[in-house]
Amino acid sequence: MRTRAAVAVEAGKPLEIMEVNLEGPKFGEVLVEIKATGICHTDEFTLSGADPEGLFPAILGHEGAGVVVEVGPGVTSLKPGDHVIPLYTPECRNCPSCLSQKTNLCTSIRSTQGQGVMPDGTSRFSMLDGTPILHYMGCSTFSNYTVLPEIALAKVRDDAPFDKICYIGCGVTTGIGAVINTAKVEIGAKAVVFGLGGIGLNVIQGLKLAGADMIIGVDLNNSKKEWGERFGMTHFVNPSEIDGDIVPYLVNMTKTPFDQIGGADYTFDCTGNVKVMRQALEACHRGWGQSIVIGVAPAGAEIQTRPFQLVTGRVWKGSAFGGARGRTDVPKIVDWYMDGKIQIDPMITHLLKLEDINKGFDLMKSGESIRSVVVF
Amino acid sequence: MRTRAAVAVEAGKPLEIMEVNLEGPKFGEVLVEIKATGICHTDEFTLSGADPEGLFPAILGHEGAGVVVEVGPGVTSLKPGDHVIPLYTPECRNCPSCLSQKTNLCTSIRSTQGQGVMPDGTSRFSMLDGTPILHYMGCSTFSNYTVLPEIALAKVRDDAPFDKICYIGCGVTTGIGAVINTAKVEIGAKAVVFGLGGIGLNVIQGLKLAGADMIIGVDLNNSKKEWGERFGMTHFVNPSEIDGDIVPYLVNMTKTPFDQIGGADYTFDCTGNVKVMRQALEACHRGWGQSIVIGVAPAGAEIQTRPFQLVTGRVWKGSAFGGARGRTDVPKIVDWYMDGKIQIDPMITHLLKLEDINKGFDLMKSGESIRSVVVF
Repeated sequence: MRTRAAVAVEAGKPLEIMEVNLEGPKFGEVLVEIKATGICHTDEFTLSGADPEGLFPAILGHEGAGVVVEVGPGVTSLKPGDHVIPLYTPECRNCPSCLSQKTNLCTSIRSTQGQGVMPDGTSRFSMLDGTPILHYMGCSTFSNYTVLPEIALAKVRDDAPFDKICYIGCGVTTGIGAVINTAKVEIGAKAVVFGLGGIGLNVIQGLKLAGADMIIGVDLNNSKKEWGERFGMTHFVNPSEIDGDIVPYLVNMTKTPFDQIGGADYTFDCTGNVKVMRQALEACHRGWGQSIVIGVAPAGAEIQTRPFQLVTGRVWKGSAFGGARGRTDVPKIVDWYMDGKIQIDPMITHLLKLEDINKGFDLMKSGESIRSVVVF
Repeated sequence: MRTRAAVAVEAGKPLEIMEVNLEGPKFGEVLVEIKATGICHTDEFTLSGADPEGLFPAILGHEGAGVVVEVGPGVTSLKPGDHVIPLYTPECRNCPSCLSQKTNLCTSIRSTQGQGVMPDGTSRFSMLDGTPILHYMGCSTFSNYTVLPEIALAKVRDDAPFDKICYIGCGVTTGIGAVINTAKVEIGAKAVVFGLGGIGLNVIQGLKLAGADMIIGVDLNNSKKEWGERFGMTHFVNPSEIDGDIVPYLVNMTKTPFDQIGGADYTFDCTGNVKVMRQALEACHRGWGQSIVIGVAPAGAEIQTRPFQLVTGRVWKGSAFGGARGRTDVPKIVDWYMDGKIQIDPMITHLLKLEDINKGFDLMKSGESIRSVVVF
């Protein structure tokens, strides 16, 4: 079949809207009609050429929602008409990682996914002249139709709006999951969130959901204060507007008459800046504070601290896709949205047509959007 | 009263054996006759002048065992004749740290302890000419008699030999506790221990006690192989005798036919070398491996890695005094020793008189001893 897609022809160039060929689903695969897709910083990271593992030409996009059109042989858990969210972190339930029950990072199709192909080693996409086009993060949601492995699709309820729940395919789950699955924040905790973009705001609403007492947002942009407060932030700090270093400032903020040590129970880096990651660790409470790295750092960048920070009880962790097992957890998060436990609507600041997808990248880079969503 | 002690007169000089004045216990304090004391790298770190927080003149030593001679007013949990182990990490059970139930790092007397004085801000020790001598880590076990706060003494059973259980005051608890309290190693785990000195050997016997399947010891000194095996090590690696980098080597060792990702469930740095700390983190299993920093790094040294290591599920932690709450946990470890669950005797390689304490430092620096113990 043919489908319309935004193709990343080469690094650093705008996406090109074109008709492409799409082969039908092979064994264990599913053809999905994408109804909506978010535009995420990770797409931009790859498109810009900064991602050392980026491959071209490819169809980017990994934050979608859609409907099953056709299932390949061997597919048992999905049928045409099912509403689904593509998962860039699949959940096979049979590999050493899934069976460990200690990580969400399913490794069953990791190597082919990294190479931009389906598990059988080939791509389903090609240019009309026959040139193969690679898949991206196993999803390629910037195409109206795409093929994914069955294990990379979360079946969700039919009454949820595609142009909102697509965001659960990455940003929402990454932020909320880091709080719930990775940090396992408890009621009454004190937390600091560095970087109030889409991920940071979702961390904030995750913290509110978890019952945190103090939710401090840190951002250089004062316009983020209102955004943070909308989702549960209790305090805002602009590091450029305080005297001295941000770490002692935050430690002081979290002191109480009883606890004069201070420091956050949990901190979250949503910036991808390795200097901020260090501040996030060091703003943790001596003895037990945990810092969760969520942001993706530039290639080659390294985090650094004195080991004394760890020996005195701080813990340095990371979170990918919010520690969520996609097929198991994503449908629950869709329910939370439909039940009003979490908000998505205000974060979807821009709805675009596929033709305007490059405008979505511009809005993201300029910081004007929280999330732009392309509706097919 | 007067007591005989080894005094650290200044940085970089050998200890001097002399008579010193010792004031009796004040409110909440206890006079203890030290029967035996181990010599630890931390004493050497301070004596050498490398410790930026080292103060002189002081009476070093923090790994002792002895008998209560006299209790000051307000002391309720100890009486003369009780056998005790001094605790450089006290357990007050009332400060924000103790009450958090999330850390063993009691902070009730941290600041005065760091200044080398008792909680009232003064020292009990002085030279015969009246010059004050500072306490060290709140213990000063290189003195035949010493004064400690009640909250810094673990009461232990009367039938345990002082010249063995003194080692529980630091090395044994630090190593075993890092496994049991900090890492919480489970039956069947795969672990790597970097550095097979006294701490490393105690980590190994902790791993054996916890039921680990694979206990890999890493040391540049081949003579440590036999030592490690004595306490439960299953594999030995000398990094200077392998081809290529130690990290992929260890990852390969831990692969199984089912799990071709590889990596340790837990790694422990017992070297204090920040480069080794990085290797220890990176040798952890993707998705869940935890690395525990135990070793004390040189002043100013920093650990470093790519944040990707954390984002893909590795956890970087540290452990001080093995995460043990001294008054609660140290008596249990003494029981484990007396019940034969853990070994100490073979690790006490040298018994010395106080006059020969500087020889104990030489034995440690040359790597000839696992532990030298001074018996009064």
